[in-house]
Amino acid sequence: MSYVTSMFARRFSIFGCATVATTWLFNRNRNGSEYMATPITDEKLLVKPEKMVFKMEKMCMDLQNRLCRELEAVETSNKKFKPDRWLRKQGGGGISCVLQDGEVFEKAGVNISVVHGKLPPAAVKQMRSRGKNLPDNQSLPFMAVGISCVIHPTNPMVPTVHFNYRYFEVDTVEEKQWWFGGGSDLTPSYLNHKDAIHFHSTLKEACDKHDATYYPKFKKWCDDYFHVTHRGERRGLGGIFFDDVDTPSADAVFDFVSSCAYAVIPSYLPIIREHVNDPFTEEQKQWQQLRRGRYVEFNLVHDRGTKFGLLTPEARVESILMSLPLTARWEYMHTPTEGSAEKELTDVLRNPRDWV
Amino acid sequence: MSYVTSMFARRFSIFGCATVATTWLFNRNRNGSEYMATPITDEKLLVKPEKMVFKMEKMCMDLQNRLCRELEAVETSNKKFKPDRWLRKQGGGGISCVLQDGEVFEKAGVNISVVHGKLPPAAVKQMRSRGKNLPDNQSLPFMAVGISCVIHPTNPMVPTVHFNYRYFEVDTVEEKQWWFGGGSDLTPSYLNHKDAIHFHSTLKEACDKHDATYYPKFKKWCDDYFHVTHRGERRGLGGIFFDDVDTPSADAVFDFVSSCAYAVIPSYLPIIREHVNDPFTEEQKQWQQLRRGRYVEFNLVHDRGTKFGLLTPEARVESILMSLPLTARWEYMHTPTEGSAEKELTDVLRNPRDWV
Repeated sequence: MSYVTSMFARRFSIFGCATVATTWLFNRNRNGSEYMATPITDEKLLVKPEKMVFKMEKMCMDLQNRLCRELEAVETSNKKFKPDRWLRKQGGGGISCVLQDGEVFEKAGVNISVVHGKLPPAAVKQMRSRGKNLPDNQSLPFMAVGISCVIHPTNPMVPTVHFNYRYFEVDTVEEKQWWFGGGSDLTPSYLNHKDAIHFHSTLKEACDKHDATYYPKFKKWCDDYFHVTHRGERRGLGGIFFDDVDTPSADAVFDFVSSCAYAVIPSYLPIIREHVNDPFTEEQKQWQQLRRGRYVEFNLVHDRGTKFGLLTPEARVESILMSLPLTARWEYMHTPTEGSAEKELTDVLRNPRDWV
Repeated sequence: MSYVTSMFARRFSIFGCATVATTWLFNRNRNGSEYMATPITDEKLLVKPEKMVFKMEKMCMDLQNRLCRELEAVETSNKKFKPDRWLRKQGGGGISCVLQDGEVFEKAGVNISVVHGKLPPAAVKQMRSRGKNLPDNQSLPFMAVGISCVIHPTNPMVPTVHFNYRYFEVDTVEEKQWWFGGGSDLTPSYLNHKDAIHFHSTLKEACDKHDATYYPKFKKWCDDYFHVTHRGERRGLGGIFFDDVDTPSADAVFDFVSSCAYAVIPSYLPIIREHVNDPFTEEQKQWQQLRRGRYVEFNLVHDRGTKFGLLTPEARVESILMSLPLTARWEYMHTPTEGSAEKELTDVLRNPRDWV
């Protein structure tokens, strides 16, 4: 393993981002479990984490590693995730793991970021606009820890998945404010009822353990958020989406977020295994490419996180745009024919359904 | 010709946009010259146009036809531009001509729009923000006539070109305000000095006939406008870009705009002919696809016209997004190697040069 990773290090050094220190060494942590790279925070602090930022980082690191290993086990080429550890001048850093141009996965990225510093006034403004009680026109100290992931499989019968779970702390003169946000959603090129029901059921189960009102509320929030308004359709079949969750207690919300985050594996991996060997035609692959085009449209035109990230000075653009597919296509005036499987999908995207 | 066009009409009817009336008949106008479709405005008004909106529409219709014919003459497959005439519920309409999946042209679109109605307050706000003296919080009557075009050739040695020329009128209680805007710019995947000099020289010549200060001013404006800020690079090698030009007189600015608009043919066609048969490798094609990805990023994240269009209710999305390439690619952390032709291009995109 160390030979392979040092090869990656050499290969990657020509791509190096001048402003960040990078290492690509797999790391065995003190508990004997593997992380994809040395954590951003001193590992001693993660063993028995006392603060929520450390608890969240430990969970994200563990999930990143487990998920990458699960996905590598499904990938049939010898491609592996390449961990890319980067540091931010302003504080903190991240670990981006990407597997690109594989046989099963066209592009899969699992990204952790652990950042701290001063929130620029524009970011504070954005938070105030969604109801946060923060002082205006000030740079506020913040910490944010999160994991985000997008997986674009090669086979058009295997859906794309996206998830993101994050913890935020902002210090004002009066108090420390904190909240969690996140969500998971499925974007197929072809509708498969069994997959949709399985994905949503697994998420509902993860939610229901904590609060029976969560799933219906966050399912609707997801349909509302992933709305490609200029196309009048949703990006995909949805899932859950939430932000600003700060009750009943930090530990309780952390447990809920952990349940959802770990649920990615049982919600998605069985769907990959089910369809990875499905036959498909050239036309079906083209349709997938057109759907990838819509994915790009949502992410670049509407997605709050992407837009905000791209406008942040010194942002790590490669980690933000890791979510874009390897390839995409735009045909003028393409419309699926009535009664086709392609039309069946777009009908559901126009009128989101309840799956459980 | 009429057989071919009626074939297009039949083929296109399955793609029909329910809200617009469509015809696909080539039309021979009263002067004996061809337009791509029946003009949006009653043709009698265009013969000897008295108003500037009609003068502009006539120019745009003529240029659309000439350019499409010139491009068809270069295309080696039997693909032709498909004229698609659409009407807006709120007033006016447009003619979109697209040639897609050709041998020489991967995707080429030449679009005319002739629209009138009420400017929504958000549009007025945007105009006020760039210095227009318009009353706030009001819907104002407006007319806009313009031509816009993006040509993405197949061969990575043939650059992409974009141009847009438009005339705007807004009525306030006190007065009718009018102005012209527009520009042309070149986006190659590989740098060719001769092409860059030819393109810029042709535009400079078109400008210089009208005002010697135009080219230097509008060349810089172009470099500033097509700035993909999150990548720290320009979209391409620039050209000219201007807005709000309303002196010395409407006729004088129209003459200037016409010179620039018609200059597209001598500025770009020779470059296509020069490189259309250049050999290229699979790697060079892939690099072109990565550059197409950057093109998409600019258009969806930064381009004012696209962003504004997508947020306008009832906008004709297919005409707005006609500018996107047929295919594009995003690789995580792709960086061209030192000394390569790919690196030479990105260096110029980071530090725009003077070409004449």
